[in-house]
Amino acid sequence: MKNKIWENILKLREASPLVQNITNYVVMNNTANALLAIGASPIMAHAHSEISDMLKIAQSLVINIGTLDEYWVKSMKLAAQEVEKHKKPWVLDPVGAGASAYRDQVLLELLALRPSIVRGNASEIMALAKLNTHQSKGVDSTMASHEALAAAQQLAKDWQTVVCVSGAKDVIADGQKTIYVENGTPLMTQVTGMGCTATALVGAWAAIVPDMLEATATAMSILSVAGEVALRNSPGPGTLQVNILDKLHNLSAEEYLQTAVVYE
Amino acid sequence: MKNKIWENILKLREASPLVQNITNYVVMNNTANALLAIGASPIMAHAHSEISDMLKIAQSLVINIGTLDEYWVKSMKLAAQEVEKHKKPWVLDPVGAGASAYRDQVLLELLALRPSIVRGNASEIMALAKLNTHQSKGVDSTMASHEALAAAQQLAKDWQTVVCVSGAKDVIADGQKTIYVENGTPLMTQVTGMGCTATALVGAWAAIVPDMLEATATAMSILSVAGEVALRNSPGPGTLQVNILDKLHNLSAEEYLQTAVVYE
Amino acid sequence: MKNKIWENILKLREASPLVQNITNYVVMNNTANALLAIGASPIMAHAHSEISDMLKIAQSLVINIGTLDEYWVKSMKLAAQEVEKHKKPWVLDPVGAGASAYRDQVLLELLALRPSIVRGNASEIMALAKLNTHQSKGVDSTMASHEALAAAQQLAKDWQTVVCVSGAKDVIADGQKTIYVENGTPLMTQVTGMGCTATALVGAWAAIVPDMLEATATAMSILSVAGEVALRNSPGPGTLQVNILDKLHNLSAEEYLQTAVVYE
Repeated sequence: MKNKIWENILKLREASPLVQNITNYVVMNNTANALLAIGASPIMAHAHSEISDMLKIAQSLVINIGTLDEYWVKSMKLAAQEVEKHKKPWVLDPVGAGASAYRDQVLLELLALRPSIVRGNASEIMALAKLNTHQSKGVDSTMASHEALAAAQQLAKDWQTVVCVSGAKDVIADGQKTIYVENGTPLMTQVTGMGCTATALVGAWAAIVPDMLEATATAMSILSVAGEVALRNSPGPGTLQVNILDKLHNLSAEEYLQTAVVYE
Repeated sequence: MKNKIWENILKLREASPLVQNITNYVVMNNTANALLAIGASPIMAHAHSEISDMLKIAQSLVINIGTLDEYWVKSMKLAAQEVEKHKKPWVLDPVGAGASAYRDQVLLELLALRPSIVRGNASEIMALAKLNTHQSKGVDSTMASHEALAAAQQLAKDWQTVVCVSGAKDVIADGQKTIYVENGTPLMTQVTGMGCTATALVGAWAAIVPDMLEATATAMSILSVAGEVALRNSPGPGTLQVNILDKLHNLSAEEYLQTAVVYE
Repeated sequence: MKNKIWENILKLREASPLVQNITNYVVMNNTANALLAIGASPIMAHAHSEISDMLKIAQSLVINIGTLDEYWVKSMKLAAQEVEKHKKPWVLDPVGAGASAYRDQVLLELLALRPSIVRGNASEIMALAKLNTHQSKGVDSTMASHEALAAAQQLAKDWQTVVCVSGAKDVIADGQKTIYVENGTPLMTQVTGMGCTATALVGAWAAIVPDMLEATATAMSILSVAGEVALRNSPGPGTLQVNILDKLHNLSAEEYLQTAVVYE
């Protein structure tokens, strides 16, 4: 698995996919930088009039609802509909799922547009599972067990998508197979938008790796390894944010292969 | 005073308050990072439909008018009205007060919604004082003296709020008592949004310290000490911005207590 | 030329011009920081109601269409019209020219409002040249040659503006004279918004240097030298972004004069 992931890392540096992002204001600079650092090319555009043109040239789409409002939600829906036409992959980041009724309503609408991959933290994925109870009784038991793993597996089945729950241990499930990524450092949770960065990277590998489970595992693995290696000379969250960008760019095969912990 | 402030610093790391921010595009990443670095949890959300839900879970609110427009101003007013219902504290950052008639009009409307704390630089607080002359003759003399200190004290009385004027020496006044903070470094003025970061931190401590004067002094003191300590290995404003985040996160009791200059 | 540029650098630190920016969400923090680092004062404001007031106090205007939408496009047009009344310089950054029909339409409308300077990368300037073929047959041959240099020179003549094509070698043309800047490092292309930063700096020098060609050359030269010097202790794009801000702030005469390569 690690060798395949390392190959995907090299492959992306060559392929330099164009990734369309409709994301939140807080993280735009960092996610654009993270995409550039791994060798991808970010597009950040949200005007209704140009969504269609952008998705002709982009190879994948990332939708992150972090700072959503009515205009941006319409952009997101237009983009998800457009990407479907082109059979290109798209990733949904359900930031703040469960925090407001508006956010949950928008998420239901976006889920209906069939994301290829959904990446959130445990609380967000649990909130999505709860939303889904109106449609699927199978999720009730998941909620009762309060385990994000079970929620992810169930939701992946229900929606026929790949679900990634990021945390100390990342879980990536497609309803049949589950991959675990165990790297990173708790200090990454003190840097804003690390989850959003993960989602953007997932979008990049989804553009060039046909298996969505493997694409997601690749992104989660490189980001968490970059975080773990970058921590060595990062006394706090400010330097960590900066050094992770460096590591995403210059991580060596040795650093990656010696550090990565990925298993099914 | 310094010991009480240090206790507040430790207390916040434990309490991890949820702070709702309606702030400007320029600084969102940095203020979110600063809130995370001190141990708080930022929410950044502005959609009219979810303001009410967010303020049910947030423990305080920060309104910063930096890149205001009609939509965002409505978000700000909705939020200030909502927070009033819940009797939670809110902080106003009057960015660019005096620079446009629109900005001043919006500030008058927000001031009428009774912020718990107002934090600005001398020129912004002086501009607010000038605005207020239509309502209070007492301010005329303040303006004549061109002293931000007198303006702050007068305005705090007029509005029954806490007013913080940040600068080489920060002044925090509630109309009766005045606290001074003398730390920081001039290089902080070359980093965008340092004032906005200060306001966000004020919002965090306002969530857990009942005395608004003390909450404000705590935020201003830790930020200026972090800046002063961070300067030691920051050759310019780029590294200073990053190292301040590190210091907000890992400032030790020794570093804080040996460096801080705070007095009434 | 280098000595004149160095004088302009010192002059700006004294003059501290106020630069109004209507720019994209991705780069706002960095461009504000870059402007502060060279000694300028950024204004970031886009509300229709305050554009006119802001352009009374600003000394130049930067318009960057990166994350444009209908509201922001109206802000841009209002600003370009307003700045014309005050005979102040303005700079256009045609981010993503050619990527969507909407973007190209907006660019034609903005070009009609006569920017003092246009700065883009080769692909953007070539796209503008293509747009312009509807109006000027002279550009057809330019497009055939597929050379950004010729495109820049022709477009500068057609529009009576200064055109800067940034790249490994920056080309700055006013239709008569052409200046070349050969500094920088390829790693700068892995940092988001370096071009946008260049445009913001061009706006700053345009505020204080009457000759637009010289103002542009000054900005391009200091940024590329800062990048080249900053690279020495930047192992990747994260640290490079930060260290460039430091260097914009503290570049010495020796560092600048020994490194800069500028010629006509």
